[in-house]
Order: sequence, then C-alpha cells, then structure tokens
Amino acid sequence: MTSSFKGPKASRRQFLAGAAAIGAGAATGARAQSPDPLITEVQEWAQGLGEGVDATPYGMPIRFETDVVRRNVPWLTADPISSINFTPIHALDGTITPQGCAFERHHSGAIELSKDDYRLMINGLVDRPLVFTYADLERFPREQHVYFCECAANTGMEWAGAQLNGAQFTHGMIHNMEYTGVPLRTLLNEAGIQTEGKWVYVEGADASSNGRSIPMEKALDDVLVAFKANGEALRKEHGYPVRLVVPGWEGNMWVKWLRRIEVTTQAVESREETSKYTDTLADGTSRKWTWVMDAKSVVTSPSPQSPITHGPGPLVITGLAWSGHGKIKRVDVSIDGGKTWEQARLASEPGDKALSRFYLDINWDGSEMLLQSRAMDETGYVQPTKAQLRDVRGLNSVYHNNCIQTWHVKTNGEAENVEVS
Amino acid sequence: MTSSFKGPKASRRQFLAGAAAIGAGAATGARAQSPDPLITEVQEWAQGLGEGVDATPYGMPIRFETDVVRRNVPWLTADPISSINFTPIHALDGTITPQGCAFERHHSGAIELSKDDYRLMINGLVDRPLVFTYADLERFPREQHVYFCECAANTGMEWAGAQLNGAQFTHGMIHNMEYTGVPLRTLLNEAGIQTEGKWVYVEGADASSNGRSIPMEKALDDVLVAFKANGEALRKEHGYPVRLVVPGWEGNMWVKWLRRIEVTTQAVESREETSKYTDTLADGTSRKWTWVMDAKSVVTSPSPQSPITHGPGPLVITGLAWSGHGKIKRVDVSIDGGKTWEQARLASEPGDKALSRFYLDINWDGSEMLLQSRAMDETGYVQPTKAQLRDVRGLNSVYHNNCIQTWHVKTNGEAENVEVS
Repeated sequence: MTSSFKGPKASRRQFLAGAAAIGAGAATGARAQSPDPLITEVQEWAQGLGEGVDATPYGMPIRFETDVVRRNVPWLTADPISSINFTPIHALDGTITPQGCAFERHHSGAIELSKDDYRLMINGLVDRPLVFTYADLERFPREQHVYFCECAANTGMEWAGAQLNGAQFTHGMIHNMEYTGVPLRTLLNEAGIQTEGKWVYVEGADASSNGRSIPMEKALDDVLVAFKANGEALRKEHGYPVRLVVPGWEGNMWVKWLRRIEVTTQAVESREETSKYTDTLADGTSRKWTWVMDAKSVVTSPSPQSPITHGPGPLVITGLAWSGHGKIKRVDVSIDGGKTWEQARLASEPGDKALSRFYLDINWDGSEMLLQSRAMDETGYVQPTKAQLRDVRGLNSVYHNNCIQTWHVKTNGEAENVEVS
Repeated sequence: MTSSFKGPKASRRQFLAGAAAIGAGAATGARAQSPDPLITEVQEWAQGLGEGVDATPYGMPIRFETDVVRRNVPWLTADPISSINFTPIHALDGTITPQGCAFERHHSGAIELSKDDYRLMINGLVDRPLVFTYADLERFPREQHVYFCECAANTGMEWAGAQLNGAQFTHGMIHNMEYTGVPLRTLLNEAGIQTEGKWVYVEGADASSNGRSIPMEKALDDVLVAFKANGEALRKEHGYPVRLVVPGWEGNMWVKWLRRIEVTTQAVESREETSKYTDTLADGTSRKWTWVMDAKSVVTSPSPQSPITHGPGPLVITGLAWSGHGKIKRVDVSIDGGKTWEQARLASEPGDKALSRFYLDINWDGSEMLLQSRAMDETGYVQPTKAQLRDVRGLNSVYHNNCIQTWHVKTNGEAENVEVS
C-alpha cells in the first residue's frame, strides 16, 4: 500500500504481515519490557480472590470505562430540563445501544411515573373510548423489533459548518434497541376507528405533553406501544413505563410516558409540528411533516474522540449506517475525502429501520486521511454530500441533516471534524 | 373456550371481545374509581418539571424495578466468591439480556483487570508464539453475533425433582448478548498452527484459571475473542476486558479475563473437564466432552415469580427457546401437562445459537393449567421430557438438564414448579 489516499483494502497477505509484527512488537517492543512482567510474573489478580456474586445484583460498567457515558453540550440548550444529551457512539461497537448510555431528549424533564399510576386513554373518533391500565396492556399480543431512534436535530449543528468535535456530539442523538410492545393498531382496533378518523394525536404524561400528529396509515402499520427495551423495563428517562415507538420516523414522535391517543380527522398542528420540527428553506418557506429519517452513516472510529493510538499498519475503520425507509443495502468508505470509495463490510444482515455496523479493514500507511462514509438504503437512495444537501435545503434548517461527515485524520492519529468542498 | 386444558388459541373474535372488556373494566371497574382521577385530574407529574439530562450520565433502572436483578441461592454454593447467580428471566421480555442483570459464574471471584495490564499469549504448537496487548486485538478484523451463553449446570437442581420455585432459579443461568470480537482463528493463524496442533487449551487470568480444552475444529469455526457485549465494554463480572465466546457450547468454556491459549496435541484433561463438567450416568460411568447445549425452552411467564394477576380472559404466555446446534425451528406450548400441544409464535427470525422469544396468546378460562414448552431445533431434535432424559442419563447428573419444564398454574393465577409423570 503506497498511498492511503488510494484506499485499497489491505490484502490478506499484507494484513498478516502487519499483524504478526504487532504480536511480536507487543511482547518485545516499545509497549512492554522484555521479558514482560505481565507475562512472566504471577500477578496480584491471579493470586487473590475476586468479587463474589452478591456484589452487584444489578451491575454497572467497570470504573475504567467511566468516560463511556452520555454527554450534554451546555451551550446547546441553556436548561438541562429541556435539553438533550448524546450517546457515546465513538466508544461503542456492534449495533445495540445499552439503555444506560442511550441519548435522552426531554421537553420538561424525565418524570417518574409508576405502573400503578399509569393510564392510557384512547378517545376522539372511536366507537368505544377506552382507558388501559399497564396490566391491561400486558394482556395483548406482543411484538418485538430492533429499531433505531434518531432525533430530527441529530447533526443539526453541522448545517452551519463543522462545529462539534466528536461523533458523539455530531451523530450521538441516536440509539438502537430491541423494543417489545403491543402494536398500536391492536389498541386502535379495540376502540374501533370511525370512518372519519384519518390521524392520531399522541401525547405524553409529562408537563410538556409533547403532542404529535401521526397519519393513520403509519399508526396502523408498524407503530408499537412499547414497555421493554433490550429485554428489560424502559428506563425512567426513556419513558417508563410506556413509550411510543415510531420506526424510522423522527425521535420527537416517539412520545414517552404515553398518556393519550386521540383519533382525529386531521393533524392537530401542535407546537411540536409547526414552530418546531419543521425545516425552514432558503426562501423562508418551511417543509413540514418531514417525519422519515433519510439514510445516513458516520464513521465512529477513528474519529475525534477515538483517535488512532498506534502507528501505520492494520487499522479497523468502523461506523454505523441506518435508514428510516428500511434496510441499509451498502456502505462505502473513502479515506481521500470522497475522491475514491471502497465498499465496507456489513457486520450482519441489515435490519429494517435499525442500525447497521460497518467495517473497513485497511493497512494504514500513516498518511493523513479525509475519512467519510456513505450509506445506500434498499430504496436505492444514496446519502448526500453536505454541498448537495445545502443546494436543496439552504442553510436555515436545524433538522434532518443526513449529509456525509468528514473526519480529518492526521499523521499522529488524531482526528478533527472538517468540511471538504 | 370451554376448557383451557384443550389448549385452543383464542380466536380473533374471542380475543377482541375479552380485550374490549379489559379497557372498559379498567376505566369503570374494580381497579379504578369512576371517574378515575388518574384520567380526570391533572397529576403532579404533569405540572412540575422532571429530571434534566445531566442527572445520570450512565443510567440505572427506575426504583420501581429493583426486584429485576440477579439473585443468588445461598444454599447452592456456600461461598459467593466461587458461586453463581441467576438472570431474572421471569421479568424480562424480548431476547437481549442487559449486561447488568446477566447471570454470573465465578470460580475465584470477578477480578479487576485494566486494558493496560491485559496480555493475551498464544503458545504451544505454533510457529510464532505471540503476545497481544488489548490495543493489538483492536487492530484485527472484527465480527459480531448475538449468542446465548448457558451454564452447563442450568436446571441442574431439577434432576432430583422440582426444587427451585421460579424460572430465574431453574433456567436463569443463561444470557443472550450481541458480542463483538476477533475470530479466534484469525489469532491462531497469526501464530501459525503446527500440524500436530489439534486442540487449544484456554485459560483465564483469575486465580482459578478455569482452563478448558477446545478441539481445533471448533476453535477455527465460530469462537470469538470478544471485548464488547451489547455494544459496550464487557462488564467486570463478564470478563473485562476480554473473554472467549464459544457459541452454543457450555458457559464454563467461555473463559473470562482470557489470558493464554496453548495449542496442544490433545485435551489437557483439566479439573474443569474431568471432576467437573462431566456427567455421571446411572451405571457410574461418566460422559465427558459434553460441550454442546442441546435444544431447550422454558415458559418465563406465567411462572412462579410472574403469576397471573388478572382473572380469566386474554393471557399472554411467553418464554425462551434456544439450541447450541443452531437455530430454533419451532416451539410448542401445552397447558395440559403435555397431553395436547399448540404451536407458539416466534417473535422474530431465529438466530444461530441465540435465544428465541415465543408467545402463545390464549383466552384463559380461569382453570388450572400444567404449562409446558417444547423446543425443536433446525436439526429436527426435540426437547425431551424429564422422564425421557432420566431414562437415558439416570439421576446422577448435575449438568445438561434440558428437559421440558412444568409450571402448575392455579385458578388464582399463582404458579409452582411441579413434575408431571
């Protein structure tokens, strides 16, 4: 590999040659003494006894991983009660997001609502207005699916330029969990939708209520009234005991502490779908009802918070890709700012409206890289460049920035958020 | 539905009739006053502000869920340092097990080992003995898969009779996580396996070392040297920073704090594969090398720790099924102690050597039930009854009890662990 900017994938032979050197280097090289006492001496942890099984009935990450947490950006929103934090995607691998570090967005803070106090009302244009307790919901047939949930404002600060220096901050308003719940259509059918009912208006039990209108076609399709995520109860900050899951659609519609579903003739045009969560174009008009999250991807490592900590040789480039329109079909990676592309490897069969993990294993020659990823979904849609997106949408938008991200990786392995023309 | 023992699945019409009554009942019946102040009055949580996004950089379950934790059974093993606890499978849904409540088994306690102090040695019959640092491992191409990990002793107390009153205790030595790591074959190929190398002997860095022999065919197949589970670093109790993942094979071989891999000509016949983890038959001879976990299933709800809390009508029966030989093909459920069976619904496409979630939605008539589930895997193998298993294996075994479990569900909804002849 003579130039990393040509982006050839390391051949098997090259890779093996590089990796063998790694092994030998670790044992005898700069990283460790020779002989390495961590190999030749009996260590403390191999002599004493460790912690017993009663130590942590519910475990937390080990103390060495305390930097792998949600983070807020104080200047983004002044008040943490109505704010957002970010998933540490730069430090995660695989596709599942643990609930404990999955991003939060609150409009009036995370409330504490018990199962006993929980009620869900369905009213409006229905034959039988109904109220369900939590125990009632558990009696309906359940489904489960892994879905991503992305805030419409994810990457929103990047419309104006390369601003936030880390994948956690540019792309961390996203999580991917295995949700279990009751299809919304089941509950709507219980109530009996009247012919004029074409929309549902969904509301949370918190002070903000965060009301949103959803067209009936989507409500009867794949929306879940969910009570578990990754097997266990929803965490308080994710809407315990019940949240709405609106697959592929912007996170603001995934109403937490779900309280009421009203069947209506038309959209309510609430605050959250008029002054907020609409996209102002260059001519001052606004796009509304921009529900679906278009195909998008990002390299999570290397990235500003996940620099390369070794010299030239084998390097794993990895990231995430997703589409609100369905499955990811293909991801390409460029190390020369989009001049040439190499098809990345998807780690598993892509899920519908779920995160896919991609890898490109290269033999890094130590040169600078302009690292990008580009997703294509099953509809054939290709993730646009920032320039292409600005040409169509202008610079006034906050939401729905799904453009290609660029990291400038330097020769010392550090990376920065940059724009390429 | 005249008799629940005939096991008919509720028809759609029956289900809807039952469920409509639920909705109405909740609003006007015994559970709530009429009018229900939880509907008609503005509640405290809808007026004040909730918790901000800085509250929990890494979140924990809400305080209402403090019973959904790992539990130990003190009389099973006297010393918690060399003991086991159990996943609360009775309270989970879906398939993913959060790391925080995934069962633990330690032979000398959970040790704390940093990435900096971590070394992995490959020696024995190899061309190039190698030592890898943690950072070295991160440079090899990664894979990820969701796999179950089941202790060979799971359900072991039940050989002698129905002993432990809860799915957590009878079947909770299991978890299911999305593992990310480097294929073991990649590292072995780096070292260069010599022709005489037919086995690997794997060891942990803890005092017990927990050494196990693995035939080369498996080592080169799907074994992972894993460093992430469900996206994040392994927890301390799950082997941080690196554990072995041996898909479909007994959990004891999934060596934590992985320290050394020696290529050998034959099995080492260590303590953990001779006096332990072998199965003594009725005639006093022992089965050894019983690595694969055969197809198995259990109803997780209703079950002794998850009783039915409502009267007759719609009831969700759910549970888990898995096989170390591959994918689950089918699960049947009986409510009459195995006289008649109904095919359950699998919640998603079964994964290879991963937990599958099954559901059977019935219209419970309020009668007693003898609840069972029976798994079939893609090889055609069918989970045996306890009697069938005892006929072949006798009563001396501790490990590899994969028999059909029976819960006696009473008319009041409570359930007990029982045996049926």
